[in-house]
Amino acid sequence: MKSTTDLNMVNAYIPGRADVGASTTAMIQRRDALLGPAYRLMYEHPLHIVRGEGAWLIDADGRRFLDVYNNVTSLGHCHPAVSEEICRQVQTLATNTRYLHDTILELAERLLATVPETSLAHLMLTCTGSEANDLAYRIAKMRTGGSGIIVTETAYHGITDAVSQFSPSLGTSVDLGPHVRLIPAPCHYHAEGVDLNERFTQDVEAAIADLQRHGIKPAMLIVDSLFTSDGILPGPAGFLKGAVEAIKRAGGLFIADEVQPGFGRTGEHMWGFQRHGVIPDIVTLGKPMGNGQPIAGLLATADVLKEFGQRSRYFNTFAGNTVSCAAALAVLQTIEREGLIDHARKVGKVLLDGIIELQARHPAIGDVRGAGLFVGVELVADRLTRTPDRWLTSQVVNRMRQQGILLSACAKGHNVLKIRPPLILSEEQAAMVIRALDQALTEAAAARTGQLNPVV
Amino acid sequence: MKSTTDLNMVNAYIPGRADVGASTTAMIQRRDALLGPAYRLMYEHPLHIVRGEGAWLIDADGRRFLDVYNNVTSLGHCHPAVSEEICRQVQTLATNTRYLHDTILELAERLLATVPETSLAHLMLTCTGSEANDLAYRIAKMRTGGSGIIVTETAYHGITDAVSQFSPSLGTSVDLGPHVRLIPAPCHYHAEGVDLNERFTQDVEAAIADLQRHGIKPAMLIVDSLFTSDGILPGPAGFLKGAVEAIKRAGGLFIADEVQPGFGRTGEHMWGFQRHGVIPDIVTLGKPMGNGQPIAGLLATADVLKEFGQRSRYFNTFAGNTVSCAAALAVLQTIEREGLIDHARKVGKVLLDGIIELQARHPAIGDVRGAGLFVGVELVADRLTRTPDRWLTSQVVNRMRQQGILLSACAKGHNVLKIRPPLILSEEQAAMVIRALDQALTEAAAARTGQLNPVV
Repeated sequence: MKSTTDLNMVNAYIPGRADVGASTTAMIQRRDALLGPAYRLMYEHPLHIVRGEGAWLIDADGRRFLDVYNNVTSLGHCHPAVSEEICRQVQTLATNTRYLHDTILELAERLLATVPETSLAHLMLTCTGSEANDLAYRIAKMRTGGSGIIVTETAYHGITDAVSQFSPSLGTSVDLGPHVRLIPAPCHYHAEGVDLNERFTQDVEAAIADLQRHGIKPAMLIVDSLFTSDGILPGPAGFLKGAVEAIKRAGGLFIADEVQPGFGRTGEHMWGFQRHGVIPDIVTLGKPMGNGQPIAGLLATADVLKEFGQRSRYFNTFAGNTVSCAAALAVLQTIEREGLIDHARKVGKVLLDGIIELQARHPAIGDVRGAGLFVGVELVADRLTRTPDRWLTSQVVNRMRQQGILLSACAKGHNVLKIRPPLILSEEQAAMVIRALDQALTEAAAARTGQLNPVV
Repeated sequence: MKSTTDLNMVNAYIPGRADVGASTTAMIQRRDALLGPAYRLMYEHPLHIVRGEGAWLIDADGRRFLDVYNNVTSLGHCHPAVSEEICRQVQTLATNTRYLHDTILELAERLLATVPETSLAHLMLTCTGSEANDLAYRIAKMRTGGSGIIVTETAYHGITDAVSQFSPSLGTSVDLGPHVRLIPAPCHYHAEGVDLNERFTQDVEAAIADLQRHGIKPAMLIVDSLFTSDGILPGPAGFLKGAVEAIKRAGGLFIADEVQPGFGRTGEHMWGFQRHGVIPDIVTLGKPMGNGQPIAGLLATADVLKEFGQRSRYFNTFAGNTVSCAAALAVLQTIEREGLIDHARKVGKVLLDGIIELQARHPAIGDVRGAGLFVGVELVADRLTRTPDRWLTSQVVNRMRQQGILLSACAKGHNVLKIRPPLILSEEQAAMVIRALDQALTEAAAARTGQLNPVV
């Protein structure tokens, strides 16, 4: 019943399947009654979290879980530098962008200073990544006069009416727009020996041609440069170049969706697109921007915004409010002060290397890949055929949770472990993840052969 | 150049028109360079606000302004009950709806308890009112199988791609969707003696018929029950009944957009639609919900959400986060503890009566109307023809700002003063508004006849 819509929720709670205890059951029933049928909980045994600190989440019974999934709180839960700024600002002034205020200007200056090699000149603020991608599409339509959109086949860009129409990971029951074309994600593991730049360029060109054949002018190619929902595919640096040139030749814009790869996560640069040497027309920002405070936005060139500025104003009541801007400014300062991009590179390498070592003992690990503190582990039923092992992936995710490590899964086959810890993860914590994964894979394999009961 | 898009910004800053001083000019130029061409500032002389308390905003020079416009901070700026909850929660846990948490459930229970006479059963959370109306439209499309939308002719419902297409107040340069039909707002002042229930019902029926004639199935009628952007038109209680019955008969939903009239503003009930004795299928919430913290959402019936829940999940990273829920819960508790609905009724009456008294001395005041602490003052060039006086309205808004009172204007003719103070406004502060308005109207009239220079 839910399978088609839950591409990224391989590990969602399913009512009645697992014995989660009387008090949790009661809380879930109360929640279902109040929030209705569209909400999901993670894990066969959902968590009742009451506190967070650093990489840890603590549940109502005092049990500690290492959170290697939530990239919103990328400085760690309740980072004091951000909490203090929010508290200070919320007691001083919480208001909107119709008045002059310093913090929004300082935030814009610092963000734009991260992309000096581009002509990205302006910051516009929203509250969510969905709103940022929605606004990017409005701007692209006005700039290009087109409406066609090209995305990868399991992409996720958000949940507004317009953006859900180009977010195939929401599943087939959410209608994709007739102006949307899907292309395969550029995955070296399933296309070994192929020149990814050439292949991806050809796919974009074919999508452009198909749009044009249907009388639809291309407005934009939008990609998350880590292809997070498609299975975490950093790929070789530079392979986006041909595709970006192709969409620009066709009069469309290139939008880099940095909601997931941005703010230092790749351990290389501030933004994921920078490893490809491409210049986006618009860069959209979100999740970790305020370490939990709702703030998102976009960077755009003056050229791209000109038409939008002439035809429309933009006022979003909460976007760019003084409190959210103070939080975002504290996040940027903390990334710099704590050297978190370098740290993400170092600890990311420890994590990646450790999981690659596990591959020797665990035949289920088909591929391990990542950039900085974003690691994907593709689990397969057979290394030769590379068949996705969704069942095993769900077992591993739930067994990791039993061991106190929180992660999830993604990709079309629901078979890629998605490891996305806060940037402050220590090497010791990375080692904990590796040890727990070793054990979870051993147990899951034993469950398959009947030596252990499966987790439900 | 901006006139078509700035229907609600009669008082926007226009570069180069007024001498705002060197330091403000420099700050505006820095802002334009950083934020680009789509942002606007209020007033000929924009404000550089640094602090807020109660109904007051304080600028960088220490000057105090009485804020009778910003309905977001409806408990007053920096209300300690909300700030304390935000500070406490942001230092404890800031996370999302994929885990169980008590606060979101308590918030949902309290919100749903405000509408016991309806079958509204579920709360869904978003970050902005735009997202709430966007989600309402997605739900309405899935429930009805239709896409047609009926709104009033100067309505504003938000800025996502879908919602901007049914927000005519954004101006003619933002394309309305071909599936959108505009109907006249129900205004007794411009349709004296007319039965508003009958007229509005007929207009909705005509719009439904026109949609059907074009092969478009109606999905929803969405109204802000105070018709805020149309000129603040509370009208006689009950006049929405026929229109609601008409849209339901045609298989569409009735959506009450409570982003502006909600949370006690009318001084009668918690929600604006309650005065009309109608039952919405969906109620959308926003602005004052977190007294500045970004939180919005919707209440919906189980029947309406069923299809959406079967076809889609809903996860919005920041929506329903623990901090925003704590803020919203504090807002509800404060409205109750401080008796703000009653207070809004009482002080709203003082304000309304005081302005009605001014009508005797100021021929420009064509009409004064309101509900609770939402008052509209329609300024006309001639009481017989009721011709809108946009120039005078702009003069009054800017002269009020000179006197230290912040308000704005709305309506198709840009000629209705929009007075929307925090619910905690005192009777003394209401008297200040009346006195300042008296003076501003006198000065504006003198500027028209050349006895005074116009404000630029």
